[in-house]
Amino acid sequence: MSTAIGVSGLAHLFGIVSIILLLVWLLHYREGIDYDSDDGLRVFNVHPLMMFLGFIFLVGEGVMAFQTVPNQRPIPKFVHMTLHLIAIVLGIVGLCAVFKFHSMRNIADVYSLHSWIGIGTFCLFGLQWIFGFVTFLVPGAQGPTRARVLPWHRAGGRVLLFMAICAAETGLMEKSGFLNLKPYQRETNLVNFLGLTILLFGVFVNMSVGIR
Amino acid sequence: MSTAIGVSGLAHLFGIVSIILLLVWLLHYREGIDYDSDDGLRVFNVHPLMMFLGFIFLVGEGVMAFQTVPNQRPIPKFVHMTLHLIAIVLGIVGLCAVFKFHSMRNIADVYSLHSWIGIGTFCLFGLQWIFGFVTFLVPGAQGPTRARVLPWHRAGGRVLLFMAICAAETGLMEKSGFLNLKPYQRETNLVNFLGLTILLFGVFVNMSVGIR
Repeated sequence: MSTAIGVSGLAHLFGIVSIILLLVWLLHYREGIDYDSDDGLRVFNVHPLMMFLGFIFLVGEGVMAFQTVPNQRPIPKFVHMTLHLIAIVLGIVGLCAVFKFHSMRNIADVYSLHSWIGIGTFCLFGLQWIFGFVTFLVPGAQGPTRARVLPWHRAGGRVLLFMAICAAETGLMEKSGFLNLKPYQRETNLVNFLGLTILLFGVFVNMSVGIR
Repeated sequence: MSTAIGVSGLAHLFGIVSIILLLVWLLHYREGIDYDSDDGLRVFNVHPLMMFLGFIFLVGEGVMAFQTVPNQRPIPKFVHMTLHLIAIVLGIVGLCAVFKFHSMRNIADVYSLHSWIGIGTFCLFGLQWIFGFVTFLVPGAQGPTRARVLPWHRAGGRVLLFMAICAAETGLMEKSGFLNLKPYQRETNLVNFLGLTILLFGVFVNMSVGIR
């Protein structure tokens, strides 16, 4: 148990470092963040911020809630469900931002590998949330059914976080291509380090719940 | 157990579909595959083929060996170790191919997020292999040590397959950018489907060993 706490500590650390790097990138190197701007790129920047905060950071923290929140029922379960609900709301805002950007610039929607992975992850996550809610909260299934479903719910969650991180990494890669970032430029390295800290966040969340 | 076999069946299926899509892409849409060619692009194409065959397909099959190979000791363990050793050899060939391509075209090495994730995964995988070999095979640790190490070996392997898939997805995304693939073009969709089948291979390998 104490090892799991150490590993989840590393996860928190890489999560926070990722937020800082992402903000430095969007606010200092890029155009800033504003959903209502006339500058399409400022609208677009809402997308990486919301998707990371919602679908990676909060999802990861939600996954770890059973380790990190005082184990007094039903608190961890409630925190788990709520963080994932907030993640869905932030995800919707982030998706709206990218669709708004595309319509401002007449760009096609949902054609790249990044978007296919991302949309797929979002839809499956919604299903997993509804499924988890009715099985474990309201109305909640019988004990034996819960016990049978729980390993699948866990595996599904692990896989969804993994898919969300694949979406983030492909998104960073796609944006690096659009920006035509050159080798060893300062911004190139920043984006790469951001990609690595996001990956390490996923790795340590996975390990903090998976060493058994 | 029978569920695990069903899930690993899906993993084999998506693995084989990925090989087919990858070959169609490299041989029909791209320039073909030839390590000794004067055409840099034919040399480059050795890279995705070897990395996928070695670091995703064989690694995944190696992970599932304890489910799919007749459970007669020490056969599954030997198959597991050997598949991962072949993966390392193929990985070295694949890495040499991309470095050869870069030197033919005077392109900088190891600057993109894809390359950072890929190189990191390769190095950690090598360490995991050596660590696994000395702990579980030759000379092999004492029983209690093995039992203590095994959950970490498993979690490490799961995370490494996940990182390898992130490397593949970012690689496909990077190449799509270099090729300037347009929305809804036939090749764009082929690359996207390839990305999804690789992702699903990883998902089902993960689930086949992780539902407990």
